[in-house]
Amino acid sequence: MDKIHSLRGMNDLIGQKVDKDNISDRIFFTEKILRNLFENYCLSEIRTPALEEENLFKRSVGDSSDIVNKELYSFLDKNEKRITLRPEGTAGVIRSIIEKKIDGDAHRLWYLGPMWRYERPQKGRYRQFYQAGIEILGYEEGLAELEMISLICSINKQLEIQNSVIKINHLGNNEYKNLFCKELVSYLKPFSSKLDKKDLERLDRNPLRILDSKNSETQNILKEAPKISDHLPQESLDLLDLIRDTFSNDCNIEIDHKLVRGLDYYTDTAFEFQTNEDKRQNAILAGGRYDKLISLISTRDIPGIGWAAGVERLMSLINIENQKEENFKVLFAVQNEKYLLKSEILKQIYELDCIHEIKINKNIKKIFTYADKNNFNFILLIGEEEDSKNKIILKNLNTKEQKIFNQSDIKIVNEIR
Amino acid sequence: MDKIHSLRGMNDLIGQKVDKDNISDRIFFTEKILRNLFENYCLSEIRTPALEEENLFKRSVGDSSDIVNKELYSFLDKNEKRITLRPEGTAGVIRSIIEKKIDGDAHRLWYLGPMWRYERPQKGRYRQFYQAGIEILGYEEGLAELEMISLICSINKQLEIQNSVIKINHLGNNEYKNLFCKELVSYLKPFSSKLDKKDLERLDRNPLRILDSKNSETQNILKEAPKISDHLPQESLDLLDLIRDTFSNDCNIEIDHKLVRGLDYYTDTAFEFQTNEDKRQNAILAGGRYDKLISLISTRDIPGIGWAAGVERLMSLINIENQKEENFKVLFAVQNEKYLLKSEILKQIYELDCIHEIKINKNIKKIFTYADKNNFNFILLIGEEEDSKNKIILKNLNTKEQKIFNQSDIKIVNEIR
Repeated sequence: MDKIHSLRGMNDLIGQKVDKDNISDRIFFTEKILRNLFENYCLSEIRTPALEEENLFKRSVGDSSDIVNKELYSFLDKNEKRITLRPEGTAGVIRSIIEKKIDGDAHRLWYLGPMWRYERPQKGRYRQFYQAGIEILGYEEGLAELEMISLICSINKQLEIQNSVIKINHLGNNEYKNLFCKELVSYLKPFSSKLDKKDLERLDRNPLRILDSKNSETQNILKEAPKISDHLPQESLDLLDLIRDTFSNDCNIEIDHKLVRGLDYYTDTAFEFQTNEDKRQNAILAGGRYDKLISLISTRDIPGIGWAAGVERLMSLINIENQKEENFKVLFAVQNEKYLLKSEILKQIYELDCIHEIKINKNIKKIFTYADKNNFNFILLIGEEEDSKNKIILKNLNTKEQKIFNQSDIKIVNEIR
Repeated sequence: MDKIHSLRGMNDLIGQKVDKDNISDRIFFTEKILRNLFENYCLSEIRTPALEEENLFKRSVGDSSDIVNKELYSFLDKNEKRITLRPEGTAGVIRSIIEKKIDGDAHRLWYLGPMWRYERPQKGRYRQFYQAGIEILGYEEGLAELEMISLICSINKQLEIQNSVIKINHLGNNEYKNLFCKELVSYLKPFSSKLDKKDLERLDRNPLRILDSKNSETQNILKEAPKISDHLPQESLDLLDLIRDTFSNDCNIEIDHKLVRGLDYYTDTAFEFQTNEDKRQNAILAGGRYDKLISLISTRDIPGIGWAAGVERLMSLINIENQKEENFKVLFAVQNEKYLLKSEILKQIYELDCIHEIKINKNIKKIFTYADKNNFNFILLIGEEEDSKNKIILKNLNTKEQKIFNQSDIKIVNEIR
């Protein structure tokens, strides 16, 4: 029989219960921390469909990005309509808010879910992957920026990410940014012959991105180039200082005037959460203000700020060695399934409002090894001997105290707390 | 500008924070209860990709089902391969377990996520919808059955579903079931002219399903028909009695020998969780044993039992009126954003390990109304007067006690518990 495999670049996640080396467990753990933080920040969950009209992404993410040019996972549906599996979360969220015509001055939203891109699978790049993100709509510059950075500090602290830094910058408003881009292009044009292919492309499409070119010759040329901070209004510089000073005791935070965003629609505040592993700086999470994005999709105009992070990337950096399991766990073990089915204990187990597992194993030693390894607090045991006398053993695995009860007498819920 | 809409039959979910009439909140609440229960039963999460080869579903769900015949959401990818957005969860889980060649005698798994079917959208039927389910692999008949029903009882209790009943039946093993089907077909053939189109189709494809025909004439004909319980081994009947007796005090549970499953691969124990609203019995959750399924996809043979439930369906039946929010919530309110940005309080707020929201509103009365309506426990307030004196008000909204602090002195974390 032909074997059926999972599709290329699409992984199964299978939890093994808090195993620090298991990728699935690390992803589930990361998601749990993120969800809790989002709830603590009083954000609401938003969940948009996996599928959207392809046009949505062409119009919002923009034709000049790699996401739209090369990587969209698109297909024709049965009605010959071009459909796309969402490559990122922001466009769907904005489409949803516009379409619902939800009233109110502000939306504070989080999302977490699978995204898809049709790119060649390679280490760390999958065709189905997970992203978490925040979109805060209806807030002018100020408080929302501080909240974004505070949330990133909290993520950093809770996931215990090492060697990390939050970089912040201000790109000016839309007009300022466009003026600066023109100035930058005029400066760089005479050096065109010295730029590599990638930077030449950027010069045409998205000149701001040349600022964070990895090419050392480009960086040399940039030394004398106009800087985005040259004519920034004082209030923008003050905001950067305020953000840095507010969080400088909590995390490594820097103002970096070379930091830009890859997508056209970003203006004003920009930020990235990076790590320094393997000597390269890698973005774990990136975002910024996108006050003009909504007008690209609709006739409305709402200010917005947001960020997104790859869950697989975050997962690879977290430290879960020190994470304590705070759940209360009871293992019910029998040497033979028959002891269980006739036992009145079974229902008491089912009714426990804590984590409980039932294990059948002839080898009692193996049962205890399993209980230790998986951090159970109590074990309830009916072995051959106990069954013959209608007894049951209760052992507290923390104190090692052991008691024997008649099966008909024990009230488990009273004994295990 | 053209408006971009969400695709037909695909909904956005946007939480409003525990609003009993909001569909998104009801779905999120239902999911949370299910996740907690699954964890308490020591099941592990499994998450398979949204996309699979179309063949997987043709081979497992089977050509004779409506799911595969009419409703698959399939398309050709860029390599002209037939890809399907999963219509249900079991096939992917089984594919995953076979492919991973995970060792160990047993897998106890849960899943929860979106599924897709390309059917005409109508009330309660969407093209993207959510299903939760359990698959327990590697367990012979007995304990796993009891655990399944126990979990359903717990769901019923926690979601407070009214007028519900759990129905259980035993279809015999694969050989028994096939023999009975032949017997049933022989009995029904002479009545062919009296059967409606649907039942005639079933007679060909899946005769067992005629047993739960809604046609009263068919039901009349069936009165004298052979019954699936006629020759069932005593141990199968005993198992049904054991299940019923174990849970009869906890929920409404009935043995119903007419209960069958829609898909060919089910044998042995079958069960449904139903409600009686609008006088019709509707399945909320359905499942059974599928010991032969794995051999349809691979050369291996592992016993399995599972169920699935539609989250939208469950959501519509739950009672969340009585659900208490146990979270601790603090509202930080200022009349003007400026009071906040210069305040040293802001960082203390961010660091609170509880649900906190920041609200800017000139109208203090509106702030208090908002706090009451959303069940905040404390409010921290800087109004115009407080700002001018560098003061801050802390009010306990449960006891109505109010204190005033110097902004430079208050240690919020010490005051709010």
